[in-house]
Order: sequence, then C-alpha cells, then structure tokens
Amino acid sequence: MPSPHDFKLQDGTVVDHLPVGTAARALAILGLPREGPVTVGMNVPSTRYGHKDIIRVEHLELRKSETDRLALLGPHVTVAIVKGGRVADKLRLEVPERLVGVIRCTNPTCITNHERISPVFDRVAASPLQLRCAYCERFGSEPFPFIA
Amino acid sequence: MPSPHDFKLQDGTVVDHLPVGTAARALAILGLPREGPVTVGMNVPSTRYGHKDIIRVEHLELRKSETDRLALLGPHVTVAIVKGGRVADKLRLEVPERLVGVIRCTNPTCITNHERISPVFDRVAASPLQLRCAYCERFGSEPFPFIA
Repeated sequence: MPSPHDFKLQDGTVVDHLPVGTAARALAILGLPREGPVTVGMNVPSTRYGHKDIIRVEHLELRKSETDRLALLGPHVTVAIVKGGRVADKLRLEVPERLVGVIRCTNPTCITNHERISPVFDRVAASPLQLRCAYCERFGSEPFPFIA
Repeated sequence: MPSPHDFKLQDGTVVDHLPVGTAARALAILGLPREGPVTVGMNVPSTRYGHKDIIRVEHLELRKSETDRLALLGPHVTVAIVKGGRVADKLRLEVPERLVGVIRCTNPTCITNHERISPVFDRVAASPLQLRCAYCERFGSEPFPFIA
C-alpha cells in the first residue's frame, strides 16, 4: 500500500455513517471541494452498518443549514469535530421538527411552487422519517430535493 | 481522529498524483463509484508536488481507454497496482502519440464534428503537452473534452 496517502485530520470535521451512495450529495451540500484537504470514502466497511460513505474535511465548521441537510441523507449520520488530532465533540444528526426553506414540495399544485413562500415541512415521524408539507400536506419522498 | 476510517487496500488500483481539482473527472472516467470501496483524497498533501488528488479503488483493473484519459488530466499521474496489500506494479502514465476517439475537436467546422469519424489527435509535444487534431490541425486546449 503506497503511503502516506491518508492525511491525518488535525482540526476539522468528519461526517460519518452516510448511507452508501450519498457522498456526492454530501459534498454538494457542503460546497466541497473548497480550500483545504478533503478525503471521501465510498462504500467503505463500517463496523456498525456494514458499509458507509464518509467525508473528512480540514478546517471546516458546519452550519445548521448544512447539518439539517446532511441529516436528511440518512438515519445514522454523525458529525465529529476534531481538534488537535482528537475527537473533541461528536453529535448524531437529527432531522429538526420543522424544516423551512430546506427541501421543495414535489406537488406541482402546492402554493410554495407558485408564490414566493419558503417551503415548510413538518417531521411527523422520526423513524422511519416522514416529512409532510405544511401547506398542501403532501409527504416528501426520498431523495429529497434540496433547495440550494 | 476517529478510526478505523481508512480501509486498507488489499487488491486494487491507486491513481496517484492527480492535479488538485481533477478527482471528479477521474471518477467519471472510471465510472466510479461502482461496486466495492473507493477512497478519494482532494487537495491532500503531496511530498513531491505540494498537493494532489488521489483515488484508491478495490478490485479494479484499468483499461487502456481509461489510462489514456487519466494521462490527460495531468503530467505526473501514476497508477499503482496493489496485490495482497503491497505495490505489485507502478507505472507513470504517458499520453500516447495518437489518440483516437478519446477527445473531441473544439473547432466547430472540423469534419469530425460533422461526419461520423472518430476524432484523431497527434501528440506533437510531450512537456508541456500539445495535442493537434489530425484533420483540421487545431490544437486541443485544457480541459480536454472527453468522448464518453
């Protein structure tokens, strides 16, 4: 195995336990690549769930708008904050009870697709995840269409 | 640093010393992700060239059509074949003297854009790379438009 290929994350963020196949969406949510090193694992072994995608980014602190979107990618996504090469904090992402301006409604007749209103979704169930449009009451379905 | 995140490549291929920013194009050339684990480094430190992109794929043998395209991404791209966790072979990619059906000609009046003829480019210089259309003699310019 050629080395050293794996840069050691000193200060940054690890988005872990992404479902296989969601890494590209996660990179898009985070606007990566930008400045600084990024490593991506796709379909790599996971002791917990068999396989996963994973992203590690140097010098990146996530905003709420980004973690809300990452939470929608899968039920087990975690974010670890790394400082000085060690895990300083770790949080399991949860979809908020209400999402405003995060995903679009797929109902072509919904008023949010005709007026300048931010789409609003309520989380009516957590596991499995169920999101319902607050305006027309249609349920969202995966893959959720993110608002950029 | 959470571990173990870096799967150890046992049998597969490492595409190394890609220029920063070319990993996405390299993944597209190789049709990744497919089956099996893939890790991608973007803008990671390189002892030789400062920074690089790198891709490691389990269970993948590259075809000539793929290595020809990868060679066009940068002047220092290497491919390492890994077997049993060790580097079995390593080659520095070179752009062939003639490319047939690999990149398109950007000259809208070139006959290759009007007739069903495979575009042909001659490598008239290696470093820096200069490719010239064999039909209309226009020089290709980066980023080269790959034929899928």
